[in-house]
Amino acid sequence: MQSKRWLLPEGVQETVPPESWRLEAARRALLDLYWRWGYELIRPPLIEYLDSLLTGAGHELDLHTFKLTDQLNGRMMGVRSDMTTQATRIDAHRLAATGPARYCYIGSVLRTRPDEPGGSRSPLQVGVEKFGDGHLHSDLEIVSLMLETLHRMGIERTYLDLGHVAIYRRLVALGGVSAEFEPTLFDVVQRKSRPDLDRLLADGRVDHELHDRLATLIGLNGPAELLQDARAALGGLDDDIDRALDETAAMVALIASHYPDMPLFVDLAELRGYRYKTGLLFAAFAPGLGRELARGGRYDNVGSAFGRPRPATGFSADLNLLAALGEFADDRPAGGIFAPPGNNDESLLAEIRRLRASGERVVVATPDHTETFGSGCDRILKQIDGAWQVRPLQG
Amino acid sequence: MQSKRWLLPEGVQETVPPESWRLEAARRALLDLYWRWGYELIRPPLIEYLDSLLTGAGHELDLHTFKLTDQLNGRMMGVRSDMTTQATRIDAHRLAATGPARYCYIGSVLRTRPDEPGGSRSPLQVGVEKFGDGHLHSDLEIVSLMLETLHRMGIERTYLDLGHVAIYRRLVALGGVSAEFEPTLFDVVQRKSRPDLDRLLADGRVDHELHDRLATLIGLNGPAELLQDARAALGGLDDDIDRALDETAAMVALIASHYPDMPLFVDLAELRGYRYKTGLLFAAFAPGLGRELARGGRYDNVGSAFGRPRPATGFSADLNLLAALGEFADDRPAGGIFAPPGNNDESLLAEIRRLRASGERVVVATPDHTETFGSGCDRILKQIDGAWQVRPLQG
Repeated sequence: MQSKRWLLPEGVQETVPPESWRLEAARRALLDLYWRWGYELIRPPLIEYLDSLLTGAGHELDLHTFKLTDQLNGRMMGVRSDMTTQATRIDAHRLAATGPARYCYIGSVLRTRPDEPGGSRSPLQVGVEKFGDGHLHSDLEIVSLMLETLHRMGIERTYLDLGHVAIYRRLVALGGVSAEFEPTLFDVVQRKSRPDLDRLLADGRVDHELHDRLATLIGLNGPAELLQDARAALGGLDDDIDRALDETAAMVALIASHYPDMPLFVDLAELRGYRYKTGLLFAAFAPGLGRELARGGRYDNVGSAFGRPRPATGFSADLNLLAALGEFADDRPAGGIFAPPGNNDESLLAEIRRLRASGERVVVATPDHTETFGSGCDRILKQIDGAWQVRPLQG
Repeated sequence: MQSKRWLLPEGVQETVPPESWRLEAARRALLDLYWRWGYELIRPPLIEYLDSLLTGAGHELDLHTFKLTDQLNGRMMGVRSDMTTQATRIDAHRLAATGPARYCYIGSVLRTRPDEPGGSRSPLQVGVEKFGDGHLHSDLEIVSLMLETLHRMGIERTYLDLGHVAIYRRLVALGGVSAEFEPTLFDVVQRKSRPDLDRLLADGRVDHELHDRLATLIGLNGPAELLQDARAALGGLDDDIDRALDETAAMVALIASHYPDMPLFVDLAELRGYRYKTGLLFAAFAPGLGRELARGGRYDNVGSAFGRPRPATGFSADLNLLAALGEFADDRPAGGIFAPPGNNDESLLAEIRRLRASGERVVVATPDHTETFGSGCDRILKQIDGAWQVRPLQG
């Protein structure tokens, strides 16, 4: 049994050197990037009461959230499984800015189950949220920052997927789908399987028109030019659908002008986060990797659960994943200086202090361990002719 | 009810700007400090299986640890309430270095109850651990790094308390105290209340000699010179006690020579972490604040639970507390440059990119929000005679 003690739960990571330092450097690079774009750091708590954590944006996170009892008062708490709701609460209550507000965050989140088999249950979530501005330029700023994030992490070959929740939402509303049946229908549309859809609707539970439109929606998945097909098939049915198609097309144009080399796709049946998202959805993928690197979208008025509806858009990613896939290089110098033990030698102590103050890494021996092996040092501090000098370590 | 949604659980913190940036700067300063001293960063997981998390160093943490069920296999997990055991596991299994190994870490931990009334249940634990070297110089290195940590955080007026678990441990062993009674006795000694001790021992449950010695121990609490009284009262009884007194005296001398201005106290009945600590204990206090800023000590052979006994010593602190108390200044520049919306103006976009690349903070307006109020900017980007220029923002 003892040998099993150190096994970590499935999907739970830990990081050791040198990767831990590289992650730290990645953290600093991203937070500094967000700061330069005007995003303010927030540090939401690891746990909150469930009614706060799962409110608004969070309802669909219920299943993914570890529950804890507060022994001080018996109330139920949850470990955060996402930081978007927390950012919404902080924007609504804690900071209560009147104009546009930009936040960034980084921290571990926990999930009871991985999003996909073999996936992480302890992502290091990093992201940004912008509140208080409903303009498409705000979505563009978020998409830009998402792409800058990937670029900064050294992930160069990416493509972008755009979607819009209003199209499916309006189609089922127009088709008069019942609230009981809608979640079942949603699951099948999310699987994007035409045969499954046909099987589900074979009993005529929804009319032919809706069946055909949903079948079309499932197929609207490919290069951005497909938006023309979408307009031909679904345009003119409903103002909200027209607006959603216009918005998606406008975003495609904006991104194409800012990032002319970025492959752009639309996927109008892709509805991740559908229950709280309200508009555009976007996700970045890496070719060959069957999952997204980062995702986000618009979720206006989620703050109403906290008494303060505001336009909102944002993205997030798992920094553990980005760091594992990216070529991002840590510029912390390797090596270091090995110093002899000598706690009574004031000149040695002064030299060690001076070297460290100048940014050097200095590993000091103790009388029990004077071997340099394993210290990670490439130089040694030696007294030569009465003066302390740094010399290369002989292999 | 709605207004209560945003209340955080008692003892659970969140941090917003500008304090969040200051905490980030403090994190970077401390990790860079530890790196310069040769300490390698480890990032232990937020959750582990209980039998790993509570092994060895962790038994006394059981009550403080939030428990979770792993839905994938039904096993019990815990949210880390301390990172020392995790460091021990990583040293023993994951890294398995043969020589001395130095680790540092920073991260949130959770406690079911605060250590003291009104205390935190979500400290941001920062600390270092050194494995594989039992020499007093290693303890000195840890104490030095603890003091450097406080200094770096801008906490200048501190004092140091030294203790040693072997004295109490050997006294109760010599007195033949039963394993059943010992925890009760321990609690009373920890309260350092002579009347409580006398009441507990009034029934003659332990002999007079032990009663007297424990009463003496409780009183051995004051300036380092008290070590002479300790030697007079408890010297010569037992080799381990003599060794412990020698070690404490040697440490007092070492610290006094390295930090001549540091007020030094001994407190030989102070036994925090007694169940897993094996030698010297040290804690740093701030005058006027009734609690410790940082604490640590020696815990040799705790790794034996993971099949790998090694000498070990370390300290940890709550960075939230240190940052709140310290004068540490964040040198991230205030202000920023407000830029007009203009996603079709290539010259504007290029100037924004250039400014950000040079390290400036640039907040870009959208057509819906062109007001500078609330942006935190002190300058504005303006087109003057066809060229983009940064100008002071008029109040």
